[in-house]
Amino acid sequence: MKLNERGLLVVLSGPSGVGKGTVRKALFQMPNHDLVYSVSMTTRAPRDGEIDGVDYYFVSKEEFLKRIKENRFLEWAEFVGQYYGTPKDKIEEQLDKGKEVVLEIEVEGALQVRKQMKDAVFIFLVPPGKKALYDRLKNRGTEALEVVQQRMAKAESEFLLAHKYDYIVVNDEVNNAADRVMAIIRAEHAKTARTIHNYLKMIGE
Amino acid sequence: MKLNERGLLVVLSGPSGVGKGTVRKALFQMPNHDLVYSVSMTTRAPRDGEIDGVDYYFVSKEEFLKRIKENRFLEWAEFVGQYYGTPKDKIEEQLDKGKEVVLEIEVEGALQVRKQMKDAVFIFLVPPGKKALYDRLKNRGTEALEVVQQRMAKAESEFLLAHKYDYIVVNDEVNNAADRVMAIIRAEHAKTARTIHNYLKMIGE
Repeated sequence: MKLNERGLLVVLSGPSGVGKGTVRKALFQMPNHDLVYSVSMTTRAPRDGEIDGVDYYFVSKEEFLKRIKENRFLEWAEFVGQYYGTPKDKIEEQLDKGKEVVLEIEVEGALQVRKQMKDAVFIFLVPPGKKALYDRLKNRGTEALEVVQQRMAKAESEFLLAHKYDYIVVNDEVNNAADRVMAIIRAEHAKTARTIHNYLKMIGE
Repeated sequence: MKLNERGLLVVLSGPSGVGKGTVRKALFQMPNHDLVYSVSMTTRAPRDGEIDGVDYYFVSKEEFLKRIKENRFLEWAEFVGQYYGTPKDKIEEQLDKGKEVVLEIEVEGALQVRKQMKDAVFIFLVPPGKKALYDRLKNRGTEALEVVQQRMAKAESEFLLAHKYDYIVVNDEVNNAADRVMAIIRAEHAKTARTIHNYLKMIGE
């Protein structure tokens, strides 16, 4: 029996290279959940096989700029001449249906979201130490040492923003981290602020 | 990897007859936990088979009154000439060892505890409706209808104190309720306020 019927917006963030995508995948592979991805909107052209509404919402630049003006993004950014953003209305639709919307996002974007979505749950995923993160970035092996060092420098500054989040989860082992995120989602649903309304209705009947 | 090494004081409360004891038992039967009971202190004599420090801490009335004066109880009450209380120092000892101390307690006692233990986790266990509680009280079958009605009246007033708790958990099915309580414990350990200190130490190394 669920006292809180509305879904949660779960913002999964953390320093560059911590493994947000891997934890998100492990989370979705767990049984019995109502998780959905937040689908981003973009002005770039769809690539082969990409489906509108699944991979991205593909819109024109005019449409995107109009939506920025109308304040219809939780966050947006421009990247090499194309726009990318998180559409607010699509997320609200899913939350109303009772879905937990998972937003996997960089630290900067997450802090933009925080301003607009006061009752979202903000989770900061961290490596089990700086060295672990450095090793992880290096072992990807696809990037020059200089790029690794740039990403590490970015991560160092992001490390200091942990206090702006509700929870800190160590990504020591991906399934442990996913388990903890799932526990957080379940616990947040039971929070008094989220349940008291339906609770009072229930005992009034 | 645990960023918060200290245990949590978990206060499991709720209206009379909701099934606190049953949920607590189911909770302790779950695998992989560090839960311990909070053992009460009493002035009544041990019954056959009761062990000091396990069932209760048995002390003299003089000792108990001295401890009240020294503010060494989280809560205490007198019941038919005997004293019962929750000793603070024993709980602190267990929390320091990283144990989660579960305190299953009536609503009135829980609100006394709240005043002294600001970072404890307060969970309000509720029935899935008033009728469900009435049926449960009646079906115990051991009590006269008048007693059932008295307990129901007590529960009705306790129902209105839910907002003083951190979480509201519906006891629709005992294992569901225990699962939710366990999720709350895991989530609370990841809260930023509890983890930031060790997190900053970790990334400083």
